[in-house]
Amino acid sequence: MNNNFLKSQFLLRDDITFLNFGSFGACAKPVFQQYQAFQLELEQEPVQFITVNGLQYLQESRAALAKYVNCNSKDLVYVTNPSYAVNIIAKSIDLKEGDEVLTTNLEYGACDKTWNYYCKKVGAKYIRQPITFPLTTKEQFVDDFFKGLTPKTKLVFISHITSTTGLRLPAEEIVAKAKSLGLMTFIDGAHAPGQIDVNLSTLQADIFTGACHKWMMTPKGSSFLYVKKELQHLFDPLIVSWGYEENLQSETQFLDYHQLQGTRDYSAFLTIPKAIEFMEENNWKEVSKNCRSLVQANSAKFCKLLNTKSIAPISDEFLVQLYSVPMKTAEPQKLQRLLFEKYKIEIPVMQLDDKIFLRYSIQAFNSQEDLDKLYEAIVDIKAKTNLIEV
Amino acid sequence: MNNNFLKSQFLLRDDITFLNFGSFGACAKPVFQQYQAFQLELEQEPVQFITVNGLQYLQESRAALAKYVNCNSKDLVYVTNPSYAVNIIAKSIDLKEGDEVLTTNLEYGACDKTWNYYCKKVGAKYIRQPITFPLTTKEQFVDDFFKGLTPKTKLVFISHITSTTGLRLPAEEIVAKAKSLGLMTFIDGAHAPGQIDVNLSTLQADIFTGACHKWMMTPKGSSFLYVKKELQHLFDPLIVSWGYEENLQSETQFLDYHQLQGTRDYSAFLTIPKAIEFMEENNWKEVSKNCRSLVQANSAKFCKLLNTKSIAPISDEFLVQLYSVPMKTAEPQKLQRLLFEKYKIEIPVMQLDDKIFLRYSIQAFNSQEDLDKLYEAIVDIKAKTNLIEV
Repeated sequence: MNNNFLKSQFLLRDDITFLNFGSFGACAKPVFQQYQAFQLELEQEPVQFITVNGLQYLQESRAALAKYVNCNSKDLVYVTNPSYAVNIIAKSIDLKEGDEVLTTNLEYGACDKTWNYYCKKVGAKYIRQPITFPLTTKEQFVDDFFKGLTPKTKLVFISHITSTTGLRLPAEEIVAKAKSLGLMTFIDGAHAPGQIDVNLSTLQADIFTGACHKWMMTPKGSSFLYVKKELQHLFDPLIVSWGYEENLQSETQFLDYHQLQGTRDYSAFLTIPKAIEFMEENNWKEVSKNCRSLVQANSAKFCKLLNTKSIAPISDEFLVQLYSVPMKTAEPQKLQRLLFEKYKIEIPVMQLDDKIFLRYSIQAFNSQEDLDKLYEAIVDIKAKTNLIEV
Repeated sequence: MNNNFLKSQFLLRDDITFLNFGSFGACAKPVFQQYQAFQLELEQEPVQFITVNGLQYLQESRAALAKYVNCNSKDLVYVTNPSYAVNIIAKSIDLKEGDEVLTTNLEYGACDKTWNYYCKKVGAKYIRQPITFPLTTKEQFVDDFFKGLTPKTKLVFISHITSTTGLRLPAEEIVAKAKSLGLMTFIDGAHAPGQIDVNLSTLQADIFTGACHKWMMTPKGSSFLYVKKELQHLFDPLIVSWGYEENLQSETQFLDYHQLQGTRDYSAFLTIPKAIEFMEENNWKEVSKNCRSLVQANSAKFCKLLNTKSIAPISDEFLVQLYSVPMKTAEPQKLQRLLFEKYKIEIPVMQLDDKIFLRYSIQAFNSQEDLDKLYEAIVDIKAKTNLIEV
């Protein structure tokens, strides 16, 4: 696939080197056009759209997504974002005093906050099990992780692909082992769908949330929550509304509880079939593969430039379309601003506990040239400022 | 103001007689155009929009809304819809066993569900105080309402304008009396802003939620929650995210807690200044006055046609731009569908406990002709079916 053609399929500004797809994604043009067309249809007859036609589109959209992630469409519901999904689960999962939620020290900070909040309410514990860097093998990771296991562990919560460190974690192996131990599993797949194949039937996690508005390229505010049928009864709606203790959709209580959340523009949810179609038409498996190659071809070079060691082996095992270069700076935000303002490069400089990472994302529209620009910018900043410690 | 010009300012279908503005409003064209322009700006640089420019627009938008409803902009935060706001409050208001929330039997069903859910959790009571129909005077209403007062009453929760019955309640008088009794007050203003003047400084309610996406004509999913400064510390975020126990916005904890709710398209919130400008430019006070006249000029006629009595005096005291005609039908949904499908009239036939109402809404684009069409349709249905009992 031609890189220029793919570039033309996004609305991103020409003057910016966009290496931060990971934070909020970016809509593919046909998806964005359909988003706004749904909004226009809504405004032409709000009552029919919100209560009749839109609900039909919503059902069709869930069916398409269910096929894409391989689950029953009755077991998934759209939510605004993964934080929303984590809040649904953490609020209702009925943790008791002393119970433990086992996770890693690599999770998304907002999720850490959610779990800490709800654990604190009941005297449960949120265990951020330290993972040793550099990662070596999946087996080593799994061993590291389950060192945090105790008889009090009730739930395993882990990212499919981490945010700050951009790592693909061995979620499949973690789920398998957790299941063999009788533990409930919840995978935070915020960065997963569209970046890797998500197959909920083979993964067999009890609970899974994924963002569509990142790597599936749909409008912001489109994500989903999957809960295994047997566990759905545990979760109350986060926003108690018409669907609570009613059978309005006459499909399932899960949908009644979580889909009806007051008046809102749910057009973003409806664009998911179009996004899946866009990926299929543009041979996205090949596109992703090329992006992964670009990620890996440049990683060692950046570690060398920043005088650090890669946090994972350079291979498909742990890397997909994100790469986080460890680095040292006393002023990460200042460095990020400088990269944007002076060099017109959009890239995050992120902090996780006491570590700093420069994280590049590679999507269809990126090329080697973009990473070369980043490289030159870092060389220049090293030469002219004290912002980067090497 | 020319009715045809105002009609041209909406996107509504020409072939439908739209008498249900009350349920979901409808966007004014300039507001809708700005909505989609913000979305395009977002897609051109998602990171800058979501984390920098958009936040600046958001602050400007809150400032404009604060001026419009006369409060400090630091005391209000955007929420998706009033249900969302009611859930924030009900989840955290710290009801104890035996405490009572005093409300009317005229409230929005989804809010009843929310309060029942949270009251049940702790053994508190949600008291739906019966209001006698027909309403006569504000004084009589206030007397009726406070018959539900007990030493256990902790909070008064009441609609500014009711949904199913379309009545303007004497919120000002209720708040004044509640305050003199030392009770906390929460006004559900879902239908208020844009339909009546909302002045939070003179109203003096402790908590107020309003929808902008109804009578202010902004896109769906734009509403606000106001909480008096002294009480803001009581309320945890409904979605615990980055803003929890942080000082991210360096404005107030109230904003940090409730404004940051994970990745979403918050463009709808940003259109509020444009909507206020639209109303000002089009002399909305005059437009509203004309709508109220139309509402009142037709109400007796419809009661007579349906052989029922008005639930309130036909005056500005209880009526604004909605009018609910009491009626009898065994099949309200079937009647509503028939009105839409055969007569192309969008109007709700709503149930509240054992009562049924046909509720018409009058907005800028409506005219006597629309109500005449409704009248003729009812005459026809009465003649040809058994759907309406008289």
